[in-house]
Order: sequence, then structure tokens, then C-alpha cells
Amino acid sequence: MTLADQPPAAALVFQTLLAQGPLTRAEAGRRTGLSAGAVTKATAPLLSDGWITELSTPAPKRPTGRPATLIAVRPERARFIGVKVTADELIGVLADLTAKPLVARRAALDSRDVDSVVLAIARLVERLRAAADAGHSGGTRGEDVHSIGVTISGDVDGQTGVVQYSPFLDWRRVSLARLVEAATGTPTVIENDVRALTVTEQWFGAGAGLDSFALITVGAGIGCGLSIGGRVVSGAHGVSGEVGHLPVGGGERTCTCGNTGCVEAVASTHAITDQARQATGNPELTMADAVRLAHSGDETVRAVFSRAGHALGLAIASVANLIGPERIIISGEGVATYDLFAEQIRETFAARAFGAAAECDLLLRPLPFEEWARGGAAVAAQRLFAPVR
Amino acid sequence: MTLADQPPAAALVFQTLLAQGPLTRAEAGRRTGLSAGAVTKATAPLLSDGWITELSTPAPKRPTGRPATLIAVRPERARFIGVKVTADELIGVLADLTAKPLVARRAALDSRDVDSVVLAIARLVERLRAAADAGHSGGTRGEDVHSIGVTISGDVDGQTGVVQYSPFLDWRRVSLARLVEAATGTPTVIENDVRALTVTEQWFGAGAGLDSFALITVGAGIGCGLSIGGRVVSGAHGVSGEVGHLPVGGGERTCTCGNTGCVEAVASTHAITDQARQATGNPELTMADAVRLAHSGDETVRAVFSRAGHALGLAIASVANLIGPERIIISGEGVATYDLFAEQIRETFAARAFGAAAECDLLLRPLPFEEWARGGAAVAAQRLFAPVR
Ligand SMILES: [Zn+2]
Ligand SMILES: [Zn+2]
Repeated sequence: MTLADQPPAAALVFQTLLAQGPLTRAEAGRRTGLSAGAVTKATAPLLSDGWITELSTPAPKRPTGRPATLIAVRPERARFIGVKVTADELIGVLADLTAKPLVARRAALDSRDVDSVVLAIARLVERLRAAADAGHSGGTRGEDVHSIGVTISGDVDGQTGVVQYSPFLDWRRVSLARLVEAATGTPTVIENDVRALTVTEQWFGAGAGLDSFALITVGAGIGCGLSIGGRVVSGAHGVSGEVGHLPVGGGERTCTCGNTGCVEAVASTHAITDQARQATGNPELTMADAVRLAHSGDETVRAVFSRAGHALGLAIASVANLIGPERIIISGEGVATYDLFAEQIRETFAARAFGAAAECDLLLRPLPFEEWARGGAAVAAQRLFAPVR
Repeated sequence: MTLADQPPAAALVFQTLLAQGPLTRAEAGRRTGLSAGAVTKATAPLLSDGWITELSTPAPKRPTGRPATLIAVRPERARFIGVKVTADELIGVLADLTAKPLVARRAALDSRDVDSVVLAIARLVERLRAAADAGHSGGTRGEDVHSIGVTISGDVDGQTGVVQYSPFLDWRRVSLARLVEAATGTPTVIENDVRALTVTEQWFGAGAGLDSFALITVGAGIGCGLSIGGRVVSGAHGVSGEVGHLPVGGGERTCTCGNTGCVEAVASTHAITDQARQATGNPELTMADAVRLAHSGDETVRAVFSRAGHALGLAIASVANLIGPERIIISGEGVATYDLFAEQIRETFAARAFGAAAECDLLLRPLPFEEWARGGAAVAAQRLFAPVR
């Protein structure tokens, strides 16, 4: 029996336990809106099939002295592999049912050709399985992997498993899920990388327990994931959270999308490097050089970061004004140099947030690429569930 | 017994019937995810208390010959008054449970002072009750009004009943719900006008049956309502859909919010008139004059409308890229002159919509102010329900 065979009430209880931790049956009923009888009925097959287990709270915590029985997800019940594809590297994790990484591995990509990338993913999956078999993960067996989740930036259709368009790999209409499945022999799902990271933030991270939040990632691209009413927004046509191409003004620089004035044309890693080269007149300047110059007080390079911060502040304020989330989490590899544009982001956000939208909590949160790979495992785990309203 | 005393399942069935029309119990079960037994249990008190009724389908529609029993909301079970407040006029409707207007009346506002507006609302409510009593609405009695819904543009807190800020009335922290309640003796709720219109579009209009849609209103302000996953987005801090202050560039014109580059600073009715005055050098020019000049081929005035259309196209594309709704409905009094900027809106939208976001359906939909007042009645009717997850 799989979870997909369970009635919606069982999936709802399971999902609630996964995201909110061990609960008494009464509390699970309150949080799902199900009656006591419905919770008992829903949990019986989950218990007998090992998806959940019963725990007792330690006696001292209970003033009445009676032990409370909690129900909790059994993390070891299923294993997933998550792989994040970047332009030059794969990052993979073998994770448990709660997307907790047990083993992590990286692999360089020497080609962006579809066949090469699929082959590299299959090899990385083998290495993760072998590491699990070698006992590095406390007895997990590699063949126990339930499914693989691959995440990648761009227009990714998670339903059909097709990468519609990935600008940085220059891929169009690649049936990636089917190809990885064929190369590994394991069921595979794919998802946009920022959306997958939003799922883990919603379940286990800085979005847990919030009715709405946005995740803005700053780096090679400017991404955005949205969770509204407890659901990650996927867009009716597969596109959502495209904050990188918001038209924040400035007609001088052309974006990869062909327009001018996009956030990404000013604030992506590439755009910052490019502008720092123009500002210094040094065509060999690297991002590391630019950061060093800015930290040493070079005003022209500092102005480049400040301009990027202004564009990001406009984008973040736009998200706050349109959606009104409780919190906006700012992450991505770009936050390593966050000190260089933090002040400008906050200043622009404060000026542009409309009325009470300014009360939105801005949270800086560095997340290593292993967290992004974990997003792939979470998306794979998510597909266990029957659809829930 | 009120609907608020009903268990969540009853409210869920009721809400589904209200938005989706008469259904068989089996179909109501499918659409709500409730079991047959739960639907029967939920509908029993609704039937006995007159909130819903049973209908039979005409025999010819049933190939099996057996009549199917449908359950349907009884529109006449409750009456509501909706009032939309504009800068110079009140528009009111007396409506049934499905927010269908039975009587409509307007009243000029000669002052924007809080007391005057509250008094004018109370008088309008009296006229609507009197018209109902006079039998204009098929026997409806004015004293049967369950509650009043007042809608107004700005930062409106529907939970506390306080207008936090309404720029065009220059109101701050006005306890409008309490004041109208005191003046009319009838329970009153308030809501942001665009959000209320979004509720009626979701229930009965061009948003019915869609998982997500946006409503963009063009006129004295540029507003936006969002419905995602069947819920109208209200914003964690009360602000959402503030599309009017998206920074679409152009630093020449200062917005009412103090910033430059806002959509409203270029595309609101006032902004268009103002720019047309500058373009023609005629400080007395009205909006009607500007429309006439543009229609007669005046290139400088046509350019003003085109620029407004460009800003609106950028705003609409931003909503499509961020949220990915199935449809964006364009409405508001500004659509009366839509022909003057339609082409520019579509051109800019096509250029800026990212990937598949361009597939979003743009729907032009003129909605008279009576529809906006209907939004107030719908919001009042909505408060009948127990909270539903
Ligand atoms: Zn762009
Ligand atoms: Zn503004």
C-alpha cells in the first residue's frame, strides 16, 4: 500500500504531522479540522503500514501524571534522493522521509549537454546509493530509495516532468524526469529549484507555521517562491515567482530576457561583475575582486552594489505590496556579500512598502546548496501524498 | 440558529452551493471532499432552517428517467445591503443571499468629513429599506436586512472594521463599521472595495470556477484583487494587491505615495488628465476633452494614453510573472476609454510576460459601480459562514 491509496483524511493527517511534528490525536484533529473518529480512522492504516508511530511524552511534562500518546511520522519509512543542478555542478543528498540529509555528495559538470547532465546525475545517484550501502548513513540501504527529485532553475513543469526552458543550461523542452528515470531505474520527479526550496522552508524551515511567506533568492539569478494559505504557488501555466524580470526601471542594461530595466539585469552576480568591470575599466575583474574593492572602500564599486540593493529593495517591496506575506526570507549564494547591499535594500523597501506592508518581516537566511538539494528530496516525498484540497 | 453555529462541513457545503449553483448531494460530496454521509448530515439542519432547498431536475434531462434531486441555496433566505463609497458619491444595493441586487440607489456626497459620510450612508440605507418595503423588490421587507457591507478604497481592516487609511477621503483610523452600525442599527462589515469586487467575481463572475485569478481595476486609482487557491488574498498585515505603486520606472512624475515611477503616477485618471494638460498646454483640459482629442488623432494626447497603457502592461505582466493566475480581469471606470490604451497594454504584456506566463487570459470586463456595491453585499453574506480552512 502506498500513501497515494489512502483517503484524503489520511494524507491530510500525515502531511500535518510531517510539517508540524508529533501531535496528540486530539491536536491533530484540531489542526486538520477532522473529528476524533476521523483521525482515529485515518491513522490506523498509517500505523499498521509503518508510516507513523506512537510516542509517549515523558511523565514529568504531564502535570496530571497520565502519559499522552503522540503520533509522529517515521522518518526511516522511506528514502529519497534530491539533486540540485547548477550551471557547473550537481549537489546531491540522500534523505529520509522528513527530507533530512543522511549523505551528501557533489559532482562537477563538464558539459551542459542534456545527455552528459543526465549521465552525471545517474552517476551521482549511484555514489549516494553506494555511500548509503557502505553504512555511512546508519544502516540505510541504497536500493531502498523510493524516488528521486531533481531541481533546476527555469520554467519547469513538475506535472509532466518537462523542463520547458532553462536559460543557464540553454535547454528547451527537455523531458528530464523520463530521462533520469531511464538512466537510474528509479521514479523521478522534477521541480523548479526555488519552488522546491520553498517547500522545505514551508515544512521545516523559516516558513513553518506561517500562513504566507515569500522566499527571494539572490545569486546567478533572482528567484522567488511564494507560499500562500499553506500552498506553494505554482502558477496556472507553470510560471510564478518570476521576480527577476520585474521592471524596476533603468533602461541602460539589457536583460537575458531581451528587455531592459529588469531586476536581474542590475542585481544578479553576473550583472554586478559586469557593472564593476565597467566602473573600474578592468575587463578581467571577478566577483571576488569586486567584493574586495567594495570592502576596501572603492566608491565606484560600492555604488554598483548599492544600485543592486536598490533594485532588490524595489523587488522585495513589490512582493510585499502585491501579496502581503507575513515574512520575506532572503537567501541564495548572493547573501554571502549581503553586507554590501543590505542597507540599500532596507532603505528602498521602507520607502516603497505601501502602508502596513512595511510590517512584513525581512529575514536574511544563508542556505547552502545542500539545502537546495534537500528541496528535491522534499518534492519527491511530497508526491507520496494523495491530492489534498 | 445562524450559519455561524453550523459545523465546518455545513459551511463548506453551503459555500460550495453558493459559488457553484445547484448540485446533487453526490456532486457536492465530490467537490467538497466530504463523504455521502457527511453531506447528508451537513445539509439536514440547512434544509430545516431554510438556508437551502431541494429541487428536481426536469425529467427529459435524465436519460435513466429517474429524477435527480438537487440541493440549492435559497436566495430569499437573507437580505444584505452593499454600499460602495467613492470620492463624490455613494452607490447602494439591497441584495439577496447570492448578492443579486434587488434595489439600487445612488446618493451624492457633498463632504468627505467622516460624520457626513456616515450620515449619508445611513440615509441611503433607509432609502433602500423603504424601496424594499414599497414592494419594488417582489415583497422583500426592509427590516429583513441581515447586515450591511460598506466598501471603500484604501487600507481597510475587515477584521476590526477600521479604515486604516483612505487617501482619496483623507481618512486615517476611522472605525467605520462601528459608526455605520450605530447610525443604522444594523450589523455592518467593511472591506477594501477591490477585494470585495474580487469576492463577487470569484463567486458569481468571471473568476467563478478558477483556481486563481487577478482583478485589475483602472480608474481614479489602480487596484488589484487576487484569488489564489480559491481564497481572496488579504495580506498578513492587511495590505495586498497594491499594484498601483509598483515601480515601473519613469522618474519625472511624483506619486501620491511620495515615490516616483509608480503605475498610478502615469495611468490613473488624474495622472492622464494632468499629463494631457501638460502636453496640450491647456490647464483647463478635462478627461473628456483628452479622450475627444485622442480619438480625433491628436498625437501628443494619444502618446499620454499610450504611456499609461505601457505602465498598465508592465503592471499586468508583473502580476502574471509573480502569481501566474489563470486569468487577469481588467475592469474599473477607466475601461470606458480602453480602446485608447488596449494595444499598448497587450504589446507591453506580450514583451514582458515571462515564458508561459504569456498564456494568462486577459479579459476586459466593464463593471458598473452597482457591481462594486454588490461586492459589499457579498462580503456581508460571506460573514454568515463559520471559518473554513
Ligand atoms: Zn529580464
Ligand atoms: Zn505610488
